[in-house]
Amino acid sequence: MKKFLTDDFLLKNDIAKKLYHSYASELPIIDYHCHVSPKEIYEDKRFENISQVWLGGDHYKWRLMRSNGVPEECITGNISDREKFQKFAELLPKAIGNPMYHWCHLELKKYFGYEGVLNGETAEEVWKLSKEVLAREDMSVRGIIKKSGVCFIGTTDDPIDSLEYHKLIAEDESFDTVVAPSFRPDKAFQIEKKDFPQYIEKLSAASGVEINSMATLKKAIANRLDYFNQSGCKASDHGLNYVPFCEMSEEDMDKALAKALKGEETTLSEQEAVLTEMLVFCAEKYAEMGWVMQLHYNCLRNPNSKMFQKLGPDTGFDVIGPNNCSQGLCKLLDKMNQGKLPKTILYSLDSSDNSFIDTVLGAFQGEGYPGTIQHGSAWWFNDTMNGMREQMKSLASLSLLGNFVGMLTDSRSFLSYTRHEYFRRILCQLIGEWVEGGEYPDDEETLGKLVQDISYYNAKNYFNI
Amino acid sequence: MKKFLTDDFLLKNDIAKKLYHSYASELPIIDYHCHVSPKEIYEDKRFENISQVWLGGDHYKWRLMRSNGVPEECITGNISDREKFQKFAELLPKAIGNPMYHWCHLELKKYFGYEGVLNGETAEEVWKLSKEVLAREDMSVRGIIKKSGVCFIGTTDDPIDSLEYHKLIAEDESFDTVVAPSFRPDKAFQIEKKDFPQYIEKLSAASGVEINSMATLKKAIANRLDYFNQSGCKASDHGLNYVPFCEMSEEDMDKALAKALKGEETTLSEQEAVLTEMLVFCAEKYAEMGWVMQLHYNCLRNPNSKMFQKLGPDTGFDVIGPNNCSQGLCKLLDKMNQGKLPKTILYSLDSSDNSFIDTVLGAFQGEGYPGTIQHGSAWWFNDTMNGMREQMKSLASLSLLGNFVGMLTDSRSFLSYTRHEYFRRILCQLIGEWVEGGEYPDDEETLGKLVQDISYYNAKNYFNI
Amino acid sequence: MKKFLTDDFLLKNDIAKKLYHSYASELPIIDYHCHVSPKEIYEDKRFENISQVWLGGDHYKWRLMRSNGVPEECITGNISDREKFQKFAELLPKAIGNPMYHWCHLELKKYFGYEGVLNGETAEEVWKLSKEVLAREDMSVRGIIKKSGVCFIGTTDDPIDSLEYHKLIAEDESFDTVVAPSFRPDKAFQIEKKDFPQYIEKLSAASGVEINSMATLKKAIANRLDYFNQSGCKASDHGLNYVPFCEMSEEDMDKALAKALKGEETTLSEQEAVLTEMLVFCAEKYAEMGWVMQLHYNCLRNPNSKMFQKLGPDTGFDVIGPNNCSQGLCKLLDKMNQGKLPKTILYSLDSSDNSFIDTVLGAFQGEGYPGTIQHGSAWWFNDTMNGMREQMKSLASLSLLGNFVGMLTDSRSFLSYTRHEYFRRILCQLIGEWVEGGEYPDDEETLGKLVQDISYYNAKNYFNI
Repeated sequence: MKKFLTDDFLLKNDIAKKLYHSYASELPIIDYHCHVSPKEIYEDKRFENISQVWLGGDHYKWRLMRSNGVPEECITGNISDREKFQKFAELLPKAIGNPMYHWCHLELKKYFGYEGVLNGETAEEVWKLSKEVLAREDMSVRGIIKKSGVCFIGTTDDPIDSLEYHKLIAEDESFDTVVAPSFRPDKAFQIEKKDFPQYIEKLSAASGVEINSMATLKKAIANRLDYFNQSGCKASDHGLNYVPFCEMSEEDMDKALAKALKGEETTLSEQEAVLTEMLVFCAEKYAEMGWVMQLHYNCLRNPNSKMFQKLGPDTGFDVIGPNNCSQGLCKLLDKMNQGKLPKTILYSLDSSDNSFIDTVLGAFQGEGYPGTIQHGSAWWFNDTMNGMREQMKSLASLSLLGNFVGMLTDSRSFLSYTRHEYFRRILCQLIGEWVEGGEYPDDEETLGKLVQDISYYNAKNYFNI
Repeated sequence: MKKFLTDDFLLKNDIAKKLYHSYASELPIIDYHCHVSPKEIYEDKRFENISQVWLGGDHYKWRLMRSNGVPEECITGNISDREKFQKFAELLPKAIGNPMYHWCHLELKKYFGYEGVLNGETAEEVWKLSKEVLAREDMSVRGIIKKSGVCFIGTTDDPIDSLEYHKLIAEDESFDTVVAPSFRPDKAFQIEKKDFPQYIEKLSAASGVEINSMATLKKAIANRLDYFNQSGCKASDHGLNYVPFCEMSEEDMDKALAKALKGEETTLSEQEAVLTEMLVFCAEKYAEMGWVMQLHYNCLRNPNSKMFQKLGPDTGFDVIGPNNCSQGLCKLLDKMNQGKLPKTILYSLDSSDNSFIDTVLGAFQGEGYPGTIQHGSAWWFNDTMNGMREQMKSLASLSLLGNFVGMLTDSRSFLSYTRHEYFRRILCQLIGEWVEGGEYPDDEETLGKLVQDISYYNAKNYFNI
Repeated sequence: MKKFLTDDFLLKNDIAKKLYHSYASELPIIDYHCHVSPKEIYEDKRFENISQVWLGGDHYKWRLMRSNGVPEECITGNISDREKFQKFAELLPKAIGNPMYHWCHLELKKYFGYEGVLNGETAEEVWKLSKEVLAREDMSVRGIIKKSGVCFIGTTDDPIDSLEYHKLIAEDESFDTVVAPSFRPDKAFQIEKKDFPQYIEKLSAASGVEINSMATLKKAIANRLDYFNQSGCKASDHGLNYVPFCEMSEEDMDKALAKALKGEETTLSEQEAVLTEMLVFCAEKYAEMGWVMQLHYNCLRNPNSKMFQKLGPDTGFDVIGPNNCSQGLCKLLDKMNQGKLPKTILYSLDSSDNSFIDTVLGAFQGEGYPGTIQHGSAWWFNDTMNGMREQMKSLASLSLLGNFVGMLTDSRSFLSYTRHEYFRRILCQLIGEWVEGGEYPDDEETLGKLVQDISYYNAKNYFNI
């Protein structure tokens, strides 16, 4: 029987082991899309205990605690860090088959040197160990990034952000990792939101452009795109409930925008038309600048209004929001394609969309670059062993796995770089299975290159790093 | 090579075998949702031959017979029991990969001691054996329940039911198994149905409440809820084509109800509003009484109108009816959650909903109880080896498998308790695979507890048995 | 470790090997649905090099080339055959996990005797070998068909087709393979298409019926059905974006048709009503003649308008187009079933529909014939190892796998008969796994019969060959 979490964790045959240990494990990490704080990187933040680093902002863990009936007071409330950690440790044995079980133990092993199993009884020894380890010099945020082998971090930033911490980090020669902003302009295109007028005021201020029409909105966005581009930005990200497609005359969109800026109600068509128009506008700009456009869709946010009122967004209450976006996505890409499509990564939160997306790639690939349109690695709720396997199997079946840009953490935590290790193990195991099963030649050179490309080089080239 | 249907059936590694034989196999069965007849239990019905017990009312078997081109006359018609059995036995070898193949042989082995393989040639020997065995003293309905180790049966009952057989069974001290009613008020909320006025008359009679408004409909339902609660009911069940959500003023719903009671047409919005309102009303009552609310949805019933006219409902012609219920389900739960959500089990007939549902659980879990909102075990057409594995893998990935309340038969047959054995074997094999693959520690105590909880204790606690 | 592409390719246990080599491999091939050219068969076309046979019209390969960033000039453009082949060979190593990798190597082995691995470096040796082999006497189209063991080919033909090549082939006693037309009347029912009036003129000419009403459209179709029937046609095929269902008075449909024939716009309801009416009309005729009706749906065609303008349809830009057709399909089948349902094969391009379809089969099976309604083998983008396994597992779970009519190539290429070998290997492996896992008895006679039926005999009986 295999032991838990050995060096060969998830690697079940010799080819997989060879590929992982000789080709994948040592490569640097490009974490091209995440939600860590550049301020915390610049200030080289430190943590006192494992609750701060694990339970401070990780809504994946909060969700599991709620699933175990833990009172909110013991999750996001005011009980002590030690008690919160106890509640979490106690539920972990029930999390069999959950990626959290693996993430936690990978992190405990890699960063804390803990080789045991976390549960209610071992919580105290882990707690003590974690305090001891976190007190060490090299366990600051920068120390963790360095020992994780991360060479590139793509944060997620609002167009109105000053990017001051990105600049300060870039100027600091003692820190080698590139920390680049990513452009996420969702708020600028959501005319249905209550605080849209307030947001637009800030965008006007940041861009120096008075916004009162589609033309001036575009001008303001263009201004911030320039600013981000000068600050080393290489990618954008758009979070969409579903992929919209609606066309309207500029005049009508101007009217819609005017209504929204006065705080008046707009119609769904107006909302979709403005969003469509701005996505197409951005796509053209991204293509010009050589950026990567990321589209995340099919999330249903904040369904639990009672908890939303109590805790706000991004606190662990979102759900998969399946929508049939086949028409919308195809029409949107087709319109973008009237000019030149930027490099684009598509992510749906509904894994039923895997094969649809993988056929869309083939319908819109561009000339000259291998894999212009990508299917993003299994996102959020799908970021599990099975989810990653299914995403890669579908991608391989319908496109060229060899061009895949691979993993990102999408995380808010500095310990989550082990998810790249997790991904690489799963990738090597999947390829190992195929070779072991006689489905692909056992040619180490070709296989090693495939693994290295998907783990590192494809992303390096794709993002011009 | 493994032989067919040994003691280690479906158990492919040592951990799985250990877990099943030492922890799962001996536990009592809680069959918290099924469709057996309390009358037949009370009267301790007997069967003359295997056709009566297998082919008398099992639409799963009828469906396979039709798939084999067997004329309806030989399925639900008047040919002899022996001939029907022959037709069924002849198709069985073609049912490779179908749970029916396993169900039949598990039942033949457990209840009839038959270790062979059923097909056209062996039909005669099985027929003879079954007559012999069914004539034995202990093969009455109660005998079968007893030898199956069933400690709790939750039947499915209409609000107008007198529950007389439940009472008679409860009073009978010679029979230990608890047979509790479950409250299934579908007919009371379907104002679009032709026989709604007639049904409401019966409900008025049963409750002693004249129903002419939403308020009086609620009063009548509340009356029957009390009655069911006094009769030991611990759960309700709602069968929905899709999960509706529509809000309307009470005045407008009263008008809709009045139209329906006069046999007039109502609009879809009116139908959805009344159903929504009543589901929310019921949920509040269930929460007060500590009942479990079950929601079954995404079934498309009676698509074959020719056969519906001939045979009526529940005769093996229903199909999976995929609907995107993400908005509906979230809004319905959110509205229920304005008060207190009852313990709730969600079942969709469309297995593409698995991961959506598993994220919904996390968004609405309640404080104080581990696993308030549950994803029901793979339902009906998904109640297959693969379907159960996929449901559990999704649940494990996105929630806490350790809190799962596990299996139910949903069956009309008294021999189907072997499906709990089937489920437990599949559960142990799945966990065994994870441990064998190095994905979870090989800690027998923790694993044994997980298996016992999911097989028995979680349901015991959840239903307050 | 298993070597790549041995005689036991994809066969991982003894039962699978036994079943494939002793029962499946030698059976003739019935390719009941494909897109090869009867003209090329009649004229016994020859190919000069592998690019002509592989890259001349295979949009699967074009799609992969585009996914690798190959310029269109090197795909469908005017560079040399040798250079095109080079571009294709270079991407092949990246196609790990893609059926193309297997198809190519199966074809290279079977038809060219090449046992190596194709990539950029070996392209030259494969190129030379292919020229040499293609120059051999027996490598004409008829030679390839003969050595592939194909006994029946069902082409895809328009109602206006003269079927002259089918007749010429039938008259040619030197060629044993039956080449039958299939009736694909899509264009006759698509009143929304710009060229509908022109098409109807041709249909009028072919049928000798002036078409100006639903009645005359039916008369013209009936005329062509007779003609096809006399020409040996045994099946029809309908390509639908989604399964429509709309009813309208004949008068209103006549009006819609009249508008369409004048080149005027019609409403979606009118389009759906005419299509529904004609499908129901055809179904009745098919049932009378004993034909098989094939329905292909959920494809989204030509999403990339730029490339559509450049290259036209069927050039590798279509995508999976998920639509919820549960209501439409059930209502359509129900209406057809008011008369007598023909033998019908259902194919959805959205594999999420697998289980829905497999329940639909059970709801509409007819009396007297085992498996009247079939779920077609994994179609197009799903025609992968995993796709075929999932289709068969779902079919087995919900119906009778033993009645499955099995594989078709749906191909435009004469080398693709190896896909039947691919299917049979996958089938034998799947069954072998079940038996090896103790889930079905190890009874060679029963297993061999299952494999033979699914590989050959079921299709032979179903299509009256």
